[in-house]
Order: sequence, then C-alpha cells, then structure tokens
Amino acid sequence: MSDAERWQRQNHKGGVLWFTGLPGSGKSTLAFELERRLFSAGMQVYAMDGDNLRHGLNADLGFSPEDRSENIRRIGEVAALYADSGLIAITAFISPYRDARQAARRAGGERFHEVYLSASVEACEARDPKGHYERARRGEIPNFTGVSAPYEAPESAELVLDTGTMAVDDCLDILVGYVERKFDLDDEG
Amino acid sequence: MSDAERWQRQNHKGGVLWFTGLPGSGKSTLAFELERRLFSAGMQVYAMDGDNLRHGLNADLGFSPEDRSENIRRIGEVAALYADSGLIAITAFISPYRDARQAARRAGGERFHEVYLSASVEACEARDPKGHYERARRGEIPNFTGVSAPYEAPESAELVLDTGTMAVDDCLDILVGYVERKFDLDDEG
Repeated sequence: MSDAERWQRQNHKGGVLWFTGLPGSGKSTLAFELERRLFSAGMQVYAMDGDNLRHGLNADLGFSPEDRSENIRRIGEVAALYADSGLIAITAFISPYRDARQAARRAGGERFHEVYLSASVEACEARDPKGHYERARRGEIPNFTGVSAPYEAPESAELVLDTGTMAVDDCLDILVGYVERKFDLDDEG
Repeated sequence: MSDAERWQRQNHKGGVLWFTGLPGSGKSTLAFELERRLFSAGMQVYAMDGDNLRHGLNADLGFSPEDRSENIRRIGEVAALYADSGLIAITAFISPYRDARQAARRAGGERFHEVYLSASVEACEARDPKGHYERARRGEIPNFTGVSAPYEAPESAELVLDTGTMAVDDCLDILVGYVERKFDLDDEG
C-alpha cells in the first residue's frame, strides 16, 4: 500500500511526533492526552512510552549510555514503521542524547517532528510526581537524567513547549493545532 | 485508548497474523496481497517482511541462530505493538525456530494467529523465484533454511495453507474469510 492510499482514506498524513524532555517534564501525560484528543477527532494515532516498550521490545536493555542509545534507536525505527503504516506515532521518552535523537529523525524521514518539552530541572524537580528526583539526589537511582546523567537539549526542535510554566490544556491546544496543520493532506511538509 | 474504543471505531479487532514457512513458500506475496484486500475492505492493516525490518530495526543483526532468534523476538514485539494500536499486523518471515515463534505468540497474546504456509522444500525449490535455492545448493548462501539450516514446522498453527499446490487466489480467499471471522467484533476469540 502506498502512503497516498493510506493517507487519503484516513484523511490525514502519517508521521512521528517525538517528545523529548527531562523526567517529570510531562511527556507521557501530554502524549496520552494528545492521543485521546486526536483519536476523538477521528485521526489514526498511537502513543508509546517506556511502559509499552521497556517490558517488551527493549526488555534486554539496561540504562548504560550504550543501552540507552540502542533503546532510542529501536524506538525511532518502530515509530518510523508506525508512520509507514499511516499512523501518527507519538513517542514519550527522555531521549537525552542528541545523536540518538538524530538517528530517530533519520529513521523517521521528513515526517519527523521533534517536540521539546523544555521544563527546567528546577521546575521538574519541584513537581517530582513520582519522587524520582528525590531518590536520585539521595543516590538511590544512578544515571538519572538531570541529576547524575546529562540531558542534551534540542537545538532545532520543530516545536518547543515550556511545560514548566504552561498548563497542560494550553499545551494540548497548541499540539492539536500543530498536528492539524502539519498532518493535513494539503500540507507541503 | 482502550482496545474496545479502537476496535469499535474501525469495526474490527486487532491482532497478529504470523506467516511462517520455507523460503519461496509465498509468505511475502500472500502477506502484501492480503494487506491490499483487507485494506480495500476498509480494515486497518499493515504487512511487514524482511524488506521493512532488516534495514531498520534489525540492521544490527546477522544470520547466526542467535541473531535470527533475536530478529524474530523483536518482530514479535513490534507486531504486538501494532496489534495494541488496533491494527491487524501481518508478518512474513521464515521464522524457522519453534521457540522463537512461541516467544512471538507470548508477546502477541490471545490475538496471535500462526499461519503455516506448508509448501515442501521440493515445491519451493522447484519454483525458486529468486534463485536462492540454487545458490544455496552451490554453497553460496550459508545457513539457508531448508537446505543448510533447519525449519521446525509448526505443530499447532491456527491456519495451514499448502501453498505448494494451491493457487494464490484460493489461498487469499481462505485468508480473507479467516480474517473476517476471527477479527469480527462479535468473535469470542
């Protein structure tokens, strides 16, 4: 089946929305809320985070820099496969390394959109919904991004949302508008 | 999103159709023709074979028994992710080892259907569309399933099609009928 046939039937293009940001920056929350809003609008969409993937496809990987890169490489390839099936794939992973995100972008091709949730360490740590920052500060979680492992911020993300200050609903409105424009059949992108 | 929400909207269940069989048994031909027929019938479907996956997700893997098993393990997980997104995932891989197919079945859960294309080595070799058997007999392709590497035939596949004798169109009719029954919203399976 060609992209054109799939897109025509569902009335929108496929592609990848790649969320990246620190732990606690709101990636999974926004990804799954966005999935619901796009689904309700009649679109073909699938959101993934560590819960889908660390137990299955990437169960053989740990948290060393090499394994983290391989983790992100595979997710990039899976997201590209989803896009090839016509869907909008939304991925919610810290993906702290620029090189690994670049590889995901290569796999996804021209229909790859990097969405940077730019909440700062301070903002994420103040929220700390799962108590992970606190445990990381106590040294109980090694290689914790933002505390004891680096986060390489995107330099040219297609969309930047400061989730440290903006409300979830406002971020969602921006995201839905972005998707409606960029995945429209008439969009040049 | 729940399975029920996705299935209700598209009017059929999701799941995995796992084609297995010798090289030249018709896996890719049937998978992509079935994809087209199901798509034309309005269903959500995506077919995969080595062309989609050996260059991307599994580009780091070779053809040793270990790498072949890891190849199939990952495909099983990806197919399960597709099924989770509501689609009917059709996979077309030799998948010669029973254990590896069993792992794919575990990943896919109760909506996994093994489809055994049971053409014999003799039938596949007589056809040999890509000349691979001939090259394997000359020793030019090592570890070639059916010639110099084993194929462990399924013992309890949900569907068996003797593609050595049946015409492609007849196999497709059987497959479409099977899918219409098993992926119907009212099916118990």
